[in-house]
Amino acid sequence: MEKPKKFKYIMRKIIQAIFICLILVGCNTTKNEKELSRVISTPVPERAAGQTDVLLLKADPIPTVRVAFIGLGMRGPGAVERMTHIPGVEIVALCDIEKDRVEKVNKKLEAKGIAKAQEFYGDTAVWRQVTALPNVDLIYVATDWSSHAMIGIQAMKDGKHVAIEVPSAMTLDEIWGLVDTSEKTRKHCMQLENCVYDFFEMTTLNMVQQGVLGEILHGEGAYIHELKGFWDTYYNNWRMNYNRHHRGDLYPTHGLGPVCQAMNIHRGDKLNYLVCVDGKQISSINHIKETTGEDATDFKNGEHTSTLIKTEKGKTILIEHNVNSPRPYSRMYQLTGSKGFANKYPIQGFSFAKGTLNDGDIPNHENLDAHTFISNRIPRDDDKNYQTYKALMEKYKHPIAKELEETAKKVGGHGGMDFIMDYRLIYCLQNGLHLDMDVYDLAEWCSLIPLTALSLENNSAPVEIPDFTRGAWNKLDKLEFAK
Amino acid sequence: MEKPKKFKYIMRKIIQAIFICLILVGCNTTKNEKELSRVISTPVPERAAGQTDVLLLKADPIPTVRVAFIGLGMRGPGAVERMTHIPGVEIVALCDIEKDRVEKVNKKLEAKGIAKAQEFYGDTAVWRQVTALPNVDLIYVATDWSSHAMIGIQAMKDGKHVAIEVPSAMTLDEIWGLVDTSEKTRKHCMQLENCVYDFFEMTTLNMVQQGVLGEILHGEGAYIHELKGFWDTYYNNWRMNYNRHHRGDLYPTHGLGPVCQAMNIHRGDKLNYLVCVDGKQISSINHIKETTGEDATDFKNGEHTSTLIKTEKGKTILIEHNVNSPRPYSRMYQLTGSKGFANKYPIQGFSFAKGTLNDGDIPNHENLDAHTFISNRIPRDDDKNYQTYKALMEKYKHPIAKELEETAKKVGGHGGMDFIMDYRLIYCLQNGLHLDMDVYDLAEWCSLIPLTALSLENNSAPVEIPDFTRGAWNKLDKLEFAK
Repeated sequence: MEKPKKFKYIMRKIIQAIFICLILVGCNTTKNEKELSRVISTPVPERAAGQTDVLLLKADPIPTVRVAFIGLGMRGPGAVERMTHIPGVEIVALCDIEKDRVEKVNKKLEAKGIAKAQEFYGDTAVWRQVTALPNVDLIYVATDWSSHAMIGIQAMKDGKHVAIEVPSAMTLDEIWGLVDTSEKTRKHCMQLENCVYDFFEMTTLNMVQQGVLGEILHGEGAYIHELKGFWDTYYNNWRMNYNRHHRGDLYPTHGLGPVCQAMNIHRGDKLNYLVCVDGKQISSINHIKETTGEDATDFKNGEHTSTLIKTEKGKTILIEHNVNSPRPYSRMYQLTGSKGFANKYPIQGFSFAKGTLNDGDIPNHENLDAHTFISNRIPRDDDKNYQTYKALMEKYKHPIAKELEETAKKVGGHGGMDFIMDYRLIYCLQNGLHLDMDVYDLAEWCSLIPLTALSLENNSAPVEIPDFTRGAWNKLDKLEFAK
Repeated sequence: MEKPKKFKYIMRKIIQAIFICLILVGCNTTKNEKELSRVISTPVPERAAGQTDVLLLKADPIPTVRVAFIGLGMRGPGAVERMTHIPGVEIVALCDIEKDRVEKVNKKLEAKGIAKAQEFYGDTAVWRQVTALPNVDLIYVATDWSSHAMIGIQAMKDGKHVAIEVPSAMTLDEIWGLVDTSEKTRKHCMQLENCVYDFFEMTTLNMVQQGVLGEILHGEGAYIHELKGFWDTYYNNWRMNYNRHHRGDLYPTHGLGPVCQAMNIHRGDKLNYLVCVDGKQISSINHIKETTGEDATDFKNGEHTSTLIKTEKGKTILIEHNVNSPRPYSRMYQLTGSKGFANKYPIQGFSFAKGTLNDGDIPNHENLDAHTFISNRIPRDDDKNYQTYKALMEKYKHPIAKELEETAKKVGGHGGMDFIMDYRLIYCLQNGLHLDMDVYDLAEWCSLIPLTALSLENNSAPVEIPDFTRGAWNKLDKLEFAK
């Protein structure tokens, strides 16, 4: 090659290189602003070869379910008590850091004439002996939030089914860990989300499944509960500390669970992305100041945190979190359908498109249209609206609620819903049926915790909600409770 | 330069060029993901030299306010009727496209023994003669949404004060046009947002201004109103058509207005950004099919649209829009404060932090804490909770409501709030006082229309809400109604 030609050749290469780089810059801009559509994604771990989903997972029937309880602070003792009312349950182990808690619960068993369980206590690692026990079918976890997933994963690795209090996982690593372990071990991993079993929620779900509300287009749920009088009941102040050090919706499952069930999430639809907005904290900072004198200037959780979610099929969900402000308790629980509407707080009721209800449904059906809220506003039998409300609640009572109503109300636990939850868990295990809630429900409902934090750290930018089924969200076409 | 050296030199340049390009790629990523903070901004027009804000704008007192009405379809005739009850008002002109509407309203004036007004009708341009009239102080605009801002801007240019129905502007150009024209002409431009004058809202605002609810941290508002029975009452189907062709919250002012007043927006705080999520439309597509047989596959507005807003001082707001689903009417209207809580739908009430209320406030103050919702749930005088609610509503009744209550309820118009709105507008004009709502309120409340659409077009990305005061949002420290 001649000198001038070689020079030209090199210059051409330079120009080409610059062009390629400019194209890269251009693509990068396009990618960020258009192709990525401004939605932040998190990594989805690859599913191991041979590993498959656990949709409708069934295990061999367990006629007598041997249960070990880990965590006997707030929620554990009540769970043990409820389990004593379910036939075919053996309480084989009780575990807590604190000796007296274990002994207290065991004494109650003894007083009931039930065989005492094996006792485990003493430190934060003692639970590992429990998951390793050979004579246990189900580990029931009611510890603090931070240890839920760790114990759950180990329990499955040790060959046990596991039921974990809400929220069962706080980070994406924990969530994927539970999903992967359940898929690998083929063990059940259920989140103990009791609110899906509350009577109004179950009645409404039954209406939805019978098509009475039409297609559900928008849902709302919340955990609005001023914890001022409760903070100091948590061991070593762990709950307040968690709120102090973490932004985001830290307790989304009570609100999200019933709405996702009504929308058949990962059973024909899936959560696509969320945006989250939170605000200034005053109440809990004041509470810390009043009770300890400390200025909690490092308090991270907002006083009120709101999240909007969009689904693949174009439905929307609002979830709120507020454990700080002086407000009445509310989980909101609202469904807007194309034919009807349900709302739980502050009064329970429904409305329907004109012509949706017929004679058989309700006493005064002719005067009703969508603008009439049929509710328990005036709970007196001479109130026509209330009569209609009662007739609807009776007509659409969920079969499971119907079956268990009397016992549930007697046993109690948040008005009976806790008992129904435990009963269903045991019933499905005993009969080798798939559980009402699977590990993907757990994953979806808990994923709001890390994903809302990610949105908040990015000025409320949209954040993708991973498909925790990794491709199987459309395999089933609706939620079905096994019979 | 020797040949090898020259070659090396050129190679070095190539490598440098590639490095620079790679750095550019890197910077670009950083810029998009961090520096831009993922918030989409819209251009803010520069304020002309010499032009200043219109905060607390006062015009010369107008003892007799001469009013011209443009638009006599849905809202206009009622406004004319209400104005006949306000002393010191002269109704000088009536304008509509349709002759019979103008004549009908004029006949009603005549029947009341009031001088007939000048009549304008015939086409969509006739309103220009009205804004140009020499004997008019105030133009009252109740036309369709699309012509609101155009008429408002021209009215001010023609030297008139203007009051415009909600929403007063649909695009950012229209909003900035109204702001700039009001600032240039020093004419009042008020949005006829009646809901801020409803009794519960005014009582709550009074509580807020007296500090009873503490610092307001979160607010909610909505326009949830199934318009199925109303769509065909709008001239040429304009309202349904607007919904059909536009995404976003098209009617945000009823929900946002009362919340912004309680939060002193542009009077010490400002709206910073919003995110918006909407969902699948079914009801209005079905309605079009049922009434016209047409498949409205091009329908753009979501069945349910939800927006979250964050303010400069860290407060949050939720605004919802649904004119489609079979639901009872609701504007939500909820305030969460550090000391108390107010909620309007489906039942009106309050809750308070323990110790906030004292003997003078309420009958049974000793038993109350934040978990008690003091409401109109059971509206009977032998109900203790209702007694407390009534006592609170009386104690904190807004001075303006107190003054006008009797007349307002007699004159009517959405239970009296429309009359209070008109009365306040005329009263302030007569006395040369600043109006209760200024052009920045109009701008902020209407801005949700174009900005929610922008968010939706970008997968719910955060969109900046401009500071329509262009720097003056912190000049005033609270909302004050002139006396």
